[in-house]
Amino acid sequence: MPEPAKLRMGMVGGGPGAFIGPVHRIAAELDGKIELVAGAFSQSAERSRAAGKSFGIDPARAYASYREMIEAERKRADAIDFIVIATPNHLHLPIALAALEAGIPVMSDKPATATYGEALQLESAVAASGLPYGLTHTYAGYAMVREARAMCAAGKLGAIRKVAVEYFQGWLSRRLETTGHKQAAWRSDPALNGPGGAIGDIGTHAFHVLEYVSGLQVTAINAALRTVVPGRKLDDDCNAFLCLNNGATGTLACSQVAAGEINEVRLRIYGETGSLDWRQQDPTRLIVKWLDGPEEIRHAAAPYLSADALATARIPAGHPEGYLEAFATLYREFAAALIAWKQGQAHPLPATLPGIEAGVRGMRFIERVIESNRRQGWVEF
Amino acid sequence: MPEPAKLRMGMVGGGPGAFIGPVHRIAAELDGKIELVAGAFSQSAERSRAAGKSFGIDPARAYASYREMIEAERKRADAIDFIVIATPNHLHLPIALAALEAGIPVMSDKPATATYGEALQLESAVAASGLPYGLTHTYAGYAMVREARAMCAAGKLGAIRKVAVEYFQGWLSRRLETTGHKQAAWRSDPALNGPGGAIGDIGTHAFHVLEYVSGLQVTAINAALRTVVPGRKLDDDCNAFLCLNNGATGTLACSQVAAGEINEVRLRIYGETGSLDWRQQDPTRLIVKWLDGPEEIRHAAAPYLSADALATARIPAGHPEGYLEAFATLYREFAAALIAWKQGQAHPLPATLPGIEAGVRGMRFIERVIESNRRQGWVEF
Amino acid sequence: MPEPAKLRMGMVGGGPGAFIGPVHRIAAELDGKIELVAGAFSQSAERSRAAGKSFGIDPARAYASYREMIEAERKRADAIDFIVIATPNHLHLPIALAALEAGIPVMSDKPATATYGEALQLESAVAASGLPYGLTHTYAGYAMVREARAMCAAGKLGAIRKVAVEYFQGWLSRRLETTGHKQAAWRSDPALNGPGGAIGDIGTHAFHVLEYVSGLQVTAINAALRTVVPGRKLDDDCNAFLCLNNGATGTLACSQVAAGEINEVRLRIYGETGSLDWRQQDPTRLIVKWLDGPEEIRHAAAPYLSADALATARIPAGHPEGYLEAFATLYREFAAALIAWKQGQAHPLPATLPGIEAGVRGMRFIERVIESNRRQGWVEF
Amino acid sequence: MPEPAKLRMGMVGGGPGAFIGPVHRIAAELDGKIELVAGAFSQSAERSRAAGKSFGIDPARAYASYREMIEAERKRADAIDFIVIATPNHLHLPIALAALEAGIPVMSDKPATATYGEALQLESAVAASGLPYGLTHTYAGYAMVREARAMCAAGKLGAIRKVAVEYFQGWLSRRLETTGHKQAAWRSDPALNGPGGAIGDIGTHAFHVLEYVSGLQVTAINAALRTVVPGRKLDDDCNAFLCLNNGATGTLACSQVAAGEINEVRLRIYGETGSLDWRQQDPTRLIVKWLDGPEEIRHAAAPYLSADALATARIPAGHPEGYLEAFATLYREFAAALIAWKQGQAHPLPATLPGIEAGVRGMRFIERVIESNRRQGWVEF
Repeated sequence: MPEPAKLRMGMVGGGPGAFIGPVHRIAAELDGKIELVAGAFSQSAERSRAAGKSFGIDPARAYASYREMIEAERKRADAIDFIVIATPNHLHLPIALAALEAGIPVMSDKPATATYGEALQLESAVAASGLPYGLTHTYAGYAMVREARAMCAAGKLGAIRKVAVEYFQGWLSRRLETTGHKQAAWRSDPALNGPGGAIGDIGTHAFHVLEYVSGLQVTAINAALRTVVPGRKLDDDCNAFLCLNNGATGTLACSQVAAGEINEVRLRIYGETGSLDWRQQDPTRLIVKWLDGPEEIRHAAAPYLSADALATARIPAGHPEGYLEAFATLYREFAAALIAWKQGQAHPLPATLPGIEAGVRGMRFIERVIESNRRQGWVEF
Repeated sequence: MPEPAKLRMGMVGGGPGAFIGPVHRIAAELDGKIELVAGAFSQSAERSRAAGKSFGIDPARAYASYREMIEAERKRADAIDFIVIATPNHLHLPIALAALEAGIPVMSDKPATATYGEALQLESAVAASGLPYGLTHTYAGYAMVREARAMCAAGKLGAIRKVAVEYFQGWLSRRLETTGHKQAAWRSDPALNGPGGAIGDIGTHAFHVLEYVSGLQVTAINAALRTVVPGRKLDDDCNAFLCLNNGATGTLACSQVAAGEINEVRLRIYGETGSLDWRQQDPTRLIVKWLDGPEEIRHAAAPYLSADALATARIPAGHPEGYLEAFATLYREFAAALIAWKQGQAHPLPATLPGIEAGVRGMRFIERVIESNRRQGWVEF
Repeated sequence: MPEPAKLRMGMVGGGPGAFIGPVHRIAAELDGKIELVAGAFSQSAERSRAAGKSFGIDPARAYASYREMIEAERKRADAIDFIVIATPNHLHLPIALAALEAGIPVMSDKPATATYGEALQLESAVAASGLPYGLTHTYAGYAMVREARAMCAAGKLGAIRKVAVEYFQGWLSRRLETTGHKQAAWRSDPALNGPGGAIGDIGTHAFHVLEYVSGLQVTAINAALRTVVPGRKLDDDCNAFLCLNNGATGTLACSQVAAGEINEVRLRIYGETGSLDWRQQDPTRLIVKWLDGPEEIRHAAAPYLSADALATARIPAGHPEGYLEAFATLYREFAAALIAWKQGQAHPLPATLPGIEAGVRGMRFIERVIESNRRQGWVEF
Repeated sequence: MPEPAKLRMGMVGGGPGAFIGPVHRIAAELDGKIELVAGAFSQSAERSRAAGKSFGIDPARAYASYREMIEAERKRADAIDFIVIATPNHLHLPIALAALEAGIPVMSDKPATATYGEALQLESAVAASGLPYGLTHTYAGYAMVREARAMCAAGKLGAIRKVAVEYFQGWLSRRLETTGHKQAAWRSDPALNGPGGAIGDIGTHAFHVLEYVSGLQVTAINAALRTVVPGRKLDDDCNAFLCLNNGATGTLACSQVAAGEINEVRLRIYGETGSLDWRQQDPTRLIVKWLDGPEEIRHAAAPYLSADALATARIPAGHPEGYLEAFATLYREFAAALIAWKQGQAHPLPATLPGIEAGVRGMRFIERVIESNRRQGWVEF
């Protein structure tokens, strides 16, 4: 039998009102290698069917639970090839474990799990399963993040001395979680979200993009958490100092009460002879500032970029690709790994695609930030 | 029989080496309402099959010519619902006519045809057919172009006095068309491209976005065409003065020899009390400059935008959507019109989606620019 | 007798309510080589004295007319070394002639005169006098304009193919001249201002900076003038096509009814292999876009700049210099020429400082634009 | 005897090779109210004379020491009205004390002294003398810093929750201090500079602008200092957490090894309903981001600004003022206070002009940062 034209994806989560479910659908299908064919979109059977209909899938494949989906799909000749997890955080682990147990590869939204302990448990399960597991740290999919990463890896800046990453939003400046706002509600509930508020939701992105681009690892953290909005149960603002494994230092700041900021992800990396500056809201440009020459702006898809950055380009320079395309790039890489695996080949995830290791580090980050804040001082990573 | 989940699209053009074919595929499928199922991707049967395989479609539906595709598809129960035309310009008319004759709706890349005469012919055919016909003037799909359009329509700037639109690229600064560069080659050949070089390829975009946003119509043109690169057969640079039907005036400039520019589409509209400024390379922001108050930056997907702009949003503010999403918005609107038509309802294209009228005006623009340049002076539109 | 520490300046114009008088005073004195010691600041003796007092000069040297000033100063041992003309345009010629006749060098605000005929007359007088005559085309004093000029002169862009200069303001979007607004009043009165409205006030600046930076000369113009605000006596908006003496073409646009624009002077120059982009409102940066490599931003006072650009720097890079400093740079160069002249040396103005030749070209520009507009077509320059 | 037209200034420091001396001269004289007439520009009599000549002052008033200057000037009828201190830091205190003792007002470069203990000593001396004492924290002179300050004072952002200030330079990325670079040499020598490296040189500016704009005071600091360049004797990089007296928190970062940064001073202030964002390298714009509406850009000298911001404007909006003008605004305010004092009136410095209180806080900042770094944890301010 020939390979089906497209990999078949089953989604957990992403039902009505969800933000990230449709994003996963678009991103997964964008490059024509994956098709959403099944889902347990909601814990309500009715709502799951409604979502399935909106996604245009076979009504029989809109399930009321991930367990039901796994069980039913296993029996089909055209079973799903992998599961994407797009639920609130507390469900990440059980879904992932159930999928892996059933021999189904996993693509998961971040953070990998709700707690660091869970992440370690998942890491073991992934290893034991031998199955592909990807983690959608979206910003890793941007062309110019790849360019920055390639420049660091090639030593273009000399030794890295200093980093500064920030992720500022303002949307939780008011106590939205008590107004029926679904996204705010689960993120503010420790039982659904895990112990990290802003640090879990967006701080993990900042942490990941920093390590991903610099190629360095955080070795110690000194973090100050705050809950700015009265009544809120989790942190909504964080400033942290970092030590990195090459002796560099840096800062990580994230906030969801930075009123007026929309989705300001910015990464700066300072080396001996120059620095990089990338902002997610201006994603097609990478600013390179040299100690001894003019500032540079590198543009996505321009022919002078590194191979890694060019590999992400779908359209010529000057035609902006954005968030969905970055997401899609991760899915494209996951699909390639999956196909290799299905063909019995070695299937290491490419180094450019975040996996369980990044997931464990992200959960460790949350745990260490909370511990540092408790101690009001430095903790080892 | 229930409506199939997705509309079935057949593509003409877009074979190996094409830029715009894959763009149409991604854009059409992005919102989950359309699926590419057939294509005459190349005039070589072999190359068409190769393209079909890369798109993951049934090999039997990769045809060697659009005529073959139309004929074969008519006989299928799961026939294509519409044709997208993504060929060099000289084929736009015959393909569109053949499709309409066969009762198949058309989504066409711009410009609508190769000459103004052809455009009039197509206009009649579209009218006679009663079929939906859409034109992918991409920039019309950007959220902030919609916001600008809504602001003009609502008179937020007072009477419009002055416009300035430009579309600058640099990629034809060298004579690429003699180097085997496929995109450059057909665009530089009057037989394949029609009589307008830069003005046809990108000037028509500038012209369209100007009329689309301002709600005004050009009534007279004074244009100066140049062929800057020696040996080139068509214009590669154009400056034009415009008169508009409300008494405003303006400029339109386009160039493909503006070395260093990538894809600089910029539209400015000046009214009595303020002005708008939009750049395609920074597409999620609309700058509004007021005569009597601070400058404003409006962000895509922000809740304060007009309904038309918000209707395009797939993801929250701060998560950039780009060129493919703008393109997809046009397809989404076309799909909705198509479904209405298939259900026997009235199916006027929404005012936000360019159709044959825009196509005729665009071809008229090319014709008038060439005539003005010949006369070295003003011509009525 | 040793040279006095500072050159002594006498000002004509610049009385109460004037914008440009205090600017000349600050700019002239900024580098410590010139001191304002006398003035005929107003045609009212009382107002002239009031202005003199505000400038802190000896009350005896606040004169009621330029003739009185010239006569009185000639008799002083510490007579003024030069005159600066900061009046409405119709007085530029008579004042300049009177000064030159009295052997007094002249620094004049632009435009050089009120009409082209007057400019030719002044050109002869300057030549006959053998005296230094400078013209304060401010933008020529900006560091990054100098850098752009040096890059063009050195052929860094290859042959120049295309230029685009614009100068947009919005402050005359309403009919201010009837509201008692002094600046608007004289600029809108042909008798005081000369025949060019926006083209005289700001178009001449745009024209000058274009020729100054490119090193090219305009050889033909096709211009469309408008008076947008009803009742206004002079043009307030202009679009023009240009031909340049190396075969390049371009556009010049100026407007004082571009609502929302403050003082948007922008110059772009496109060569075979790259382009320059400078905006006066972001004056310390010069954007250089290469056909084959990343975009560059060059920063004022950075060590990698050309000698001409560095020569203007007073403070290290990153400490912005602005409009007054650009103005002062012209005065600094004028002062150096004046000192050489006083010492009996040759005193050609440096090529970087605009003089009467630039003044004649500027007045010719106004005259040719008006003629082109009258003919509605091309005129030779 | 009538008041002399201009206040007479004597400078200490600012000899050949100095950066800040000429800046003080230009800034002091820019508004026509002050004149540099004397100086002890260098500890070498010869070099002082050379500097005096370059400044165009009477050779008899170029002194070899500040003591000599004070003594000599006291005997003149046209004695200096105040002293400006522009020396390396270790001389700030003795010069200021000598001047105050002699009854001469003082304008001092920052930091006020070399150590916190000295600052307290100076504070007492200033109080005892009853003389005006100003401190040139330049950034306080920028129009849009004044606008930001006025907005905070008026509660436009609601309660302030979060601040972030940074001052990044890259010029000490190499060990310049061993290469004969005068500016680098004294700044890197604890004996001449005091105990704070980057934190003294630029951190104090960041600290000041933060308190100045927000109207808040730092109450606790947790700072991490580094000396990145091997062999350097003082810190060249600092990250600090801050607590403010209204419960807000924030960060302060400064570095002189941020390769590629020129002089990046940026201040962000987040309130309940919006935020402010100002960058010194784009000084004429203040970005205001609202929680519930479009982002705003306020432009220097625009009529809608606060009275405090407009009071600094010398030229119309769109004509950029920069660093020298900001500096000059401080001198203009100092001059007004001085004139009032000379006339026997009350002469409190205006609240907009930094004085000894700001100086003491700045020195306390350095001391507290060093102590926090020593303890590796929080210290009270």
